[in-house]
Amino acid sequence: MDTSSSTTPQLDIDDQTRESFYKVLYGRRDVRGQFLPDELPDDVLINILHAAHHAPSVGLSQPWNFILIRSEEKRKQIFSAFEEANTEAAEMFSDERKLRYQKLKLQGILDSPLNVCITCDRERGGPVVLGKTHQPEMDLYSTVCAVQNFWLAARSENIGVGWVSIIDRDKLASLLKLPDHVVPIAYLCVGYVREFLKKPELELAQWEKRAELDDLIYTDQWGLSD
Amino acid sequence: MDTSSSTTPQLDIDDQTRESFYKVLYGRRDVRGQFLPDELPDDVLINILHAAHHAPSVGLSQPWNFILIRSEEKRKQIFSAFEEANTEAAEMFSDERKLRYQKLKLQGILDSPLNVCITCDRERGGPVVLGKTHQPEMDLYSTVCAVQNFWLAARSENIGVGWVSIIDRDKLASLLKLPDHVVPIAYLCVGYVREFLKKPELELAQWEKRAELDDLIYTDQWGLSD
Repeated sequence: MDTSSSTTPQLDIDDQTRESFYKVLYGRRDVRGQFLPDELPDDVLINILHAAHHAPSVGLSQPWNFILIRSEEKRKQIFSAFEEANTEAAEMFSDERKLRYQKLKLQGILDSPLNVCITCDRERGGPVVLGKTHQPEMDLYSTVCAVQNFWLAARSENIGVGWVSIIDRDKLASLLKLPDHVVPIAYLCVGYVREFLKKPELELAQWEKRAELDDLIYTDQWGLSD
Repeated sequence: MDTSSSTTPQLDIDDQTRESFYKVLYGRRDVRGQFLPDELPDDVLINILHAAHHAPSVGLSQPWNFILIRSEEKRKQIFSAFEEANTEAAEMFSDERKLRYQKLKLQGILDSPLNVCITCDRERGGPVVLGKTHQPEMDLYSTVCAVQNFWLAARSENIGVGWVSIIDRDKLASLLKLPDHVVPIAYLCVGYVREFLKKPELELAQWEKRAELDDLIYTDQWGLSD
């Protein structure tokens, strides 16, 4: 299927299409405090899931599942698990940093109309998967690619997404009744938002600074600059 | 910074922008056999790296680095490591599957003008990182988000990317002289291409089939359909 001997590159994305793409990419935020309760239309949700499902996956194994958590009772249980972990997390910071941590809003589990857990089935594709033979974690990474596709596609649909990682993974797996060979990768709060902030919330709150890109680039080996 | 009490959602992405975004997302491919030797212009490479650097990261820790492998000698060493792993990998498949595996072209390490290794610094952000306290693998996942941003941004710049995972990770770390606390996440071949295939190569080669999205969606818990 690759018999072309052309030496002319395929250049089918024009400047305007690229600009639109970058508008979505740079407009994406990790949303915590700006959710509105409005339900997502079904077709919008399907568009986002379809985009996630077209992420790259090792050996085309497509190890992901999408659990849509709509039940308020279930979300309250998950919120409790978050609160427990978050109290423990605050204790790990010292003094001033701890006080600032406690003031941050770090999830929208009950404020958003929909939560989505994206999971990875470690047995998908059978015992030998092309591309996973020497890097067994590739299925986890494929699932993260699906998460990032979900996140960006949501932004293109004007839908905000927040990834909640302050939660015990075993507790989450138990609440969602995951089989042993399935692991939760991302717990996402999903919904329309009043506002997409101009910059990441932790940057605006001066919790961390954006690194300089130049400082992160090496040539040929670690530590060598061009 | 979130004092707005508006109940009107922000809807700033219009239909045409969204369509452009989806054109890029669905046009992305894992490229192996279609690379052209043309060098990437510097500004194009910087655009792609800038997009990767604006991926979400746990606690805004930005744990990634980008190693640009331009040296042909280094790429030949990495190609040898691939060949060694690939020979081992073929042996894991049986009979007919093994013969088909051996015929697949699975990397473009020497055909593409540039290789990029995206790494994760497990110590970035210090001993306690917001959002990593209960899920210590979140820095690895943040780095994969940067990989997916890189991949999509490259497609928007008409640049193909192929992720090579058939390689021993310790050998790769050693060749790139990574410190112990830094792990390689993705080894990418990068360049212009003769053609972006219409579908994933493994789907066209009938190695695996695309799953039905409907079969991957559950509600409220594993195994429950709406």
